[in-house]
Amino acid sequence: MQSWPLTVDRFIDHAARWHADVPIASRNHEGAITHMSWEGVRRDASRLSHALAAHGIMPGDRIGTLAMNGVRHVAAWFGIMGMGAICHTLNPRFSDEQLSYIINHAADRLIFIDRQFLPLVDRLRSQCPVIERVVVLDGDGGGGWERFLNGHGEDYPWGRFDENSGSGLCYTSGTTGAPKGVLYTHRSNYLHTMMILQPDSFNLGAGDIVMPVVPMFHANGWGLIFAAAAVGAKLVLPGSRLDGASLHDLIEREGVTVTAGVPTVWLSLLAYLKDTGKRPGKLKRVFVGGAACSEAIIRAFDQYCVEVQHVWGMTELSPVGTSGRPTPEVQALSHDEQIPYRLAQGRSMIGVDLRIVDEQGKELPRDGKSVGAIQIRGHSVVGRYYRSDAPALDADGFFDTGDVGTIDAHGYMRITDRAKDVIKSGGEWISSVDIEINAMNHPGVELAAAIGVLHPKWNERPLLLLKRSVNSDVTEEEIRELLSNRLARWAVPDAILFVDDIPLGATGKIDKKPLRARYRDYYGKQGE
Amino acid sequence: MQSWPLTVDRFIDHAARWHADVPIASRNHEGAITHMSWEGVRRDASRLSHALAAHGIMPGDRIGTLAMNGVRHVAAWFGIMGMGAICHTLNPRFSDEQLSYIINHAADRLIFIDRQFLPLVDRLRSQCPVIERVVVLDGDGGGGWERFLNGHGEDYPWGRFDENSGSGLCYTSGTTGAPKGVLYTHRSNYLHTMMILQPDSFNLGAGDIVMPVVPMFHANGWGLIFAAAAVGAKLVLPGSRLDGASLHDLIEREGVTVTAGVPTVWLSLLAYLKDTGKRPGKLKRVFVGGAACSEAIIRAFDQYCVEVQHVWGMTELSPVGTSGRPTPEVQALSHDEQIPYRLAQGRSMIGVDLRIVDEQGKELPRDGKSVGAIQIRGHSVVGRYYRSDAPALDADGFFDTGDVGTIDAHGYMRITDRAKDVIKSGGEWISSVDIEINAMNHPGVELAAAIGVLHPKWNERPLLLLKRSVNSDVTEEEIRELLSNRLARWAVPDAILFVDDIPLGATGKIDKKPLRARYRDYYGKQGE
Repeated sequence: MQSWPLTVDRFIDHAARWHADVPIASRNHEGAITHMSWEGVRRDASRLSHALAAHGIMPGDRIGTLAMNGVRHVAAWFGIMGMGAICHTLNPRFSDEQLSYIINHAADRLIFIDRQFLPLVDRLRSQCPVIERVVVLDGDGGGGWERFLNGHGEDYPWGRFDENSGSGLCYTSGTTGAPKGVLYTHRSNYLHTMMILQPDSFNLGAGDIVMPVVPMFHANGWGLIFAAAAVGAKLVLPGSRLDGASLHDLIEREGVTVTAGVPTVWLSLLAYLKDTGKRPGKLKRVFVGGAACSEAIIRAFDQYCVEVQHVWGMTELSPVGTSGRPTPEVQALSHDEQIPYRLAQGRSMIGVDLRIVDEQGKELPRDGKSVGAIQIRGHSVVGRYYRSDAPALDADGFFDTGDVGTIDAHGYMRITDRAKDVIKSGGEWISSVDIEINAMNHPGVELAAAIGVLHPKWNERPLLLLKRSVNSDVTEEEIRELLSNRLARWAVPDAILFVDDIPLGATGKIDKKPLRARYRDYYGKQGE
Repeated sequence: MQSWPLTVDRFIDHAARWHADVPIASRNHEGAITHMSWEGVRRDASRLSHALAAHGIMPGDRIGTLAMNGVRHVAAWFGIMGMGAICHTLNPRFSDEQLSYIINHAADRLIFIDRQFLPLVDRLRSQCPVIERVVVLDGDGGGGWERFLNGHGEDYPWGRFDENSGSGLCYTSGTTGAPKGVLYTHRSNYLHTMMILQPDSFNLGAGDIVMPVVPMFHANGWGLIFAAAAVGAKLVLPGSRLDGASLHDLIEREGVTVTAGVPTVWLSLLAYLKDTGKRPGKLKRVFVGGAACSEAIIRAFDQYCVEVQHVWGMTELSPVGTSGRPTPEVQALSHDEQIPYRLAQGRSMIGVDLRIVDEQGKELPRDGKSVGAIQIRGHSVVGRYYRSDAPALDADGFFDTGDVGTIDAHGYMRITDRAKDVIKSGGEWISSVDIEINAMNHPGVELAAAIGVLHPKWNERPLLLLKRSVNSDVTEEEIRELLSNRLARWAVPDAILFVDDIPLGATGKIDKKPLRARYRDYYGKQGE
C-alpha cells in the first residue's frame, strides 16, 4: 500500500478542493457576520505558512493563539500546523500566572490574538520574553493579520513530515500543581477526526452546518474544526457572543443543524427561546459536554425536536472519550426509559479502549453498578505530558482519567464523580455529581456544588451549596424533598445552603477548592 | 500521544467487548440459517489463531480462503489476520489455471474452503504442492473446522506487530497477463474502514443490519465485514444463495437495513419483489458497485423507498474509491434532476485523492465535460503489486485506475468507460458504458455489450450485442429509437444484434475479449 501520512493539512486540502465554495460564517467582536469559503481559508492558511517560514519559524516551533472561534483562528490553525509548527491554544480564562507559565513552558515564539485580548497580552509580555511577535487576528494594519500575510503565496507545500510530529498543544489547568501540556500529533488528530465523524458519534457529513460553541482553545474545540473540514461541512463560528440571543440569531440566520458546547450555554439559549417564543431554526442535534447535562436540558430541547447527545472527554483524550447515538436496544425503549441512557456520558467508539478498575487496578464488571476509576487507552490518548519524562500511563498502557463511574451492559459509561470530589461517608461513596444534577433539575436553582465536609461520626458528609436563579425563591425544604425522592437516604446532604455565588475555574467548571476550605469545619462545629 | 497500532484485530475485539450479543446470521449451503454472536466469532477466531500457530504458521505466512460469505469465513479472516498471517481470498470464479497460479504465487500454506469447492480444490492440489492442508469450513469431522480448532484457547494475543504488516491479499484477474496480487496492510484496511463508516459514505452504525451480498473474495467484500465489526452492527451473510427469493427471505427474516452488491443481484431481487408483490422489509439502503447501476434499478427501488447509492472502486483501492450520499446542493434538486448524480459513481472521501488527467498526464478541469484517465492516491491505494519490483504509481504517486471519466463541479465522478473499452470513432471517443446503460434501461434487455469494431472509414464504430430478458420480444428498432433519444447521433451503434448469451469474466463483468475477436471484421465485411 502507498505511504500516505495522516496529517491534518489533508483536511483543509480536501475541503478546499471538493467543497471550495462552502462558507465559514464568523461573527466578529463587534457583532458583524462575515463569510469566507473553505478555498479562501486554505488560501489564507497557505499565506500564513509562508509568512511564518519567512519569520524563521521551523517545524516543531510553538505558536500560540489566544482567540475565540473565528475564521482567521481556523486559518491560523491550518497555516501553523500545515507547515509543521505546533499550534498552542491559550485559554484566556486562565490566570495571568498560569498563562505566562505555559507560554514560557511551551516557548511560544509568536502569538495570534483577538484584539480584545491586547490588554491581557500587554500584561503577559513582560513576563514572557520568549514572545517575539504578537499578531492581531482581527486587525489589518500594523501588527495585524493582513499585514503579516501580505505578499505571501498561496501554494505552501504542506505536510511532507512524519505523521507523529506535533500539531497542537493544549494545557490543562489541573487542580494542583502547574498546568500540564498535552501535545497532539498529526496522526492523533487525524484519527480522532475519523472517529468522531462516525454516525454513532458526531455523525457529520457535507450536509451539516456545524456551530462549535465550545471554544477552539478547549482541547481541539472537541475536534469539530477538523471534522467539518474533513467532510466539507459549513462552519458557523460565534466569536465572543455566546448569549442565547446571539446564538439563536446565528442558528436561524446560518441554518445551523449541529452545535456543541457546555450546559450553561444551552440554558441561556433555552431561556431565550422560552422568553421570546422563537424556535431553533433547522437545529437537529446539540452535543453537550464539559459538564454533566441535566435532564431538564434534554427535555427542554425535546420540545423543539432537537436531539441532545452527551459527549464526555478531556484534554488528554483529544478530547472525545465517549459519545453516542442510542444503540438499537435503547432506541427501542420509551422516551422516558431512554432518559437515563441519554444522561449517561455515552459509549466508546473504535479507537478508545475503555475500562473501570478498582483501587488495586483490577477491571470491574460492566454491570452498571460497580463504580471504579475510568481508564482509557487509544490512538488519541496522551502518552506523557509535554516536556515530562514520566509516562502518564499505567503498566497496561492505560491513562487514568481521574473520573470515577460505571459502565452498563449496553456499554454506556456514567461518570459518578471526579475521583477527588467523591464524598466518602461511613464507608459508602456518595457522588457529588448526582446531588448537583438532581438539585439543578429544579428551575429555581442556577448552580449547585456538593462537597464532602469533615464529620465527627461519618468521616465525611455531603454539604450542598446552591445559587438561586434570578427571581427564584426556592427553599431548602423544596430541594430536600426533591433530593429525598431521587437519592438514596444517606446521599441527601445534611445541610443545604443558599449562597450568592459559586466560584468557577478557568474552564468554566465549579472550583470546589475554596468551597472545601471555607466549609471545612461546618459539620464539626454543628456537632459541637 | 500513545502508540496504538492500527490493526484489524481491534475491530473484532471492539465488537466482542461492546456488542457481544449482536448476532451474525449466516445461511449455509443447504439453506439453513444459523446465528452466532460477535463474542462467539471472536472466540472462534482466537481458537483459529492458536491452531494456526500450532500448525507452525508464522506472521507473514499466507493462508487461502475459498468460500462464500459465511460466519466461519468471517472468523477465519480475523483469526488469520489477528495473529499476523495474511488472508488470501481466492475467487472460485477464476479458472483452474488462474487459481493454481495465484495459490503458488502467494505460496498459500493452508486453505479454508466451503465444502462445495472440494472438487475444485481436489483438481488444484496436484498443481499446488505449496498447500499443506485444506480445512473445510462447513465440516466438523476430519478435515473440518471444529476438528482443526478443537482444544485451542480463546485468548490469543492478537496484534503486537507493525501496522504496516500485511493482513490480506487479493488478486485481480486482469485482462492481459497473469493475475496481479494486492497486499492489504492492517493500516490500510483500518483506515479504509474508518473512511467508509462516514455518514457521507456507507453511513454505518450499531443500529444497522448489514447484508454484504458482494462476496468476501471480492476486494475485502467492499470493506463491510470490517466496518460492521468496527461499529458492532449485525451482519447477515447469504452464503451461496444469491437469487431474489433467498435474498428477500434474509432481508425480511433478519431485518436487513443495508445491503451491497452488483447490479445483476438487484435485478433478480427486484424481479422477485415485482412477481410476488412482496416488499423489502426494513431495507433502507442498497449500495451498488462492481458495474454501473442503471436508472431502472434506482427508480425501481425508489418505489419501495429504498435509497440506491453508487459505489465505485477496484481491488487496488481496498476497494472503495468513490461513494456518496448526495451533497446538499444535489439534495435540493427535484427527484428527476437528482438521477444523473445518483447514476454517477460518487464523490471522493477524505483519504482518497482523485484526479483526471489527459494523455500527457496534465490534470483536467473538474467541469463534468473533460474526459480523462482517473487516477487515485490515498492511504488504502496499492503502491506496488505483490512480489513486484516495479511501482504501480506515476511520478506524483498516483495510481492509474484504467478507467476514464469526468468529474463535475459538485465533485461527482462519472466513469465513461474502461480505457481499453473506449470506442474511438473518427477522432471522437464514444463511451461503451453509455450505450450499454441506456440499452439496459429497456426492460426487455437483460444484458448489453457495446464494442468497438474496425471500420473502413471511421477507424472504429460501435456495435451493440444484446441478450433479451426471458419472454422479451424487444426489436432492434425499439432499441435504436431509445438510443437515438438518449445518445449523440454518432454514438448510436451501426449494428444492434441479439445473441443468446454474453460471456462474463471471473468477477461477473462482461468479458469483451472474445466478442471483439468474433466481431472484428463485422463492419469491414458490411462495407464490402
